[in-house]
Amino acid sequence: MDDDSVLRECRESIDNIDAALVHLLAERFKITKRVGEHKATTGLPPADPDRETIQIARLRQLAETSGLDPTFSEKFLRFIVDEVIRHHNQVR
Amino acid sequence: MDDDSVLRECRESIDNIDAALVHLLAERFKITKRVGEHKATTGLPPADPDRETIQIARLRQLAETSGLDPTFSEKFLRFIVDEVIRHHNQVR
Repeated sequence: MDDDSVLRECRESIDNIDAALVHLLAERFKITKRVGEHKATTGLPPADPDRETIQIARLRQLAETSGLDPTFSEKFLRFIVDEVIRHHNQVR
Repeated sequence: MDDDSVLRECRESIDNIDAALVHLLAERFKITKRVGEHKATTGLPPADPDRETIQIARLRQLAETSGLDPTFSEKFLRFIVDEVIRHHNQVR
């Protein structure tokens, strides 16, 4: 498999993309941490269903234009938001 | 809540990051689709546990340096790889 240049080149690209994803996620959680602290200070609830509805609609739209499965984009946001809410609840 | 400039600014940044994440994921799945087709043609199995072990170790390392929870980075990769394997099995 070491001689499989197609596989090797694809994996190099995947590794580059994954590094970018990890760094973006690190930045996203830094911001949601600030949001969590702000919500805790001002007494806002951790979850905001209206905001999530808007986010899902927007991400599905972006997914369609970029060629990502819209259903997966929604699952992805749910996965991230669940982690964010877990963090917010830990802060309380 | 419309007057809450802290919340508004944070959400604008989150929306920008989410757009970037969606576009990177679209690109990642384009590459893994090519990998899937290549594996189907050459008879390689969809999953590759050795490769996944290396990916997890690398992502945990990147997570630590960027301030992301390493456990979450591993959960995240698992989440993405599960979707990729679902795609690969659909191709067969």
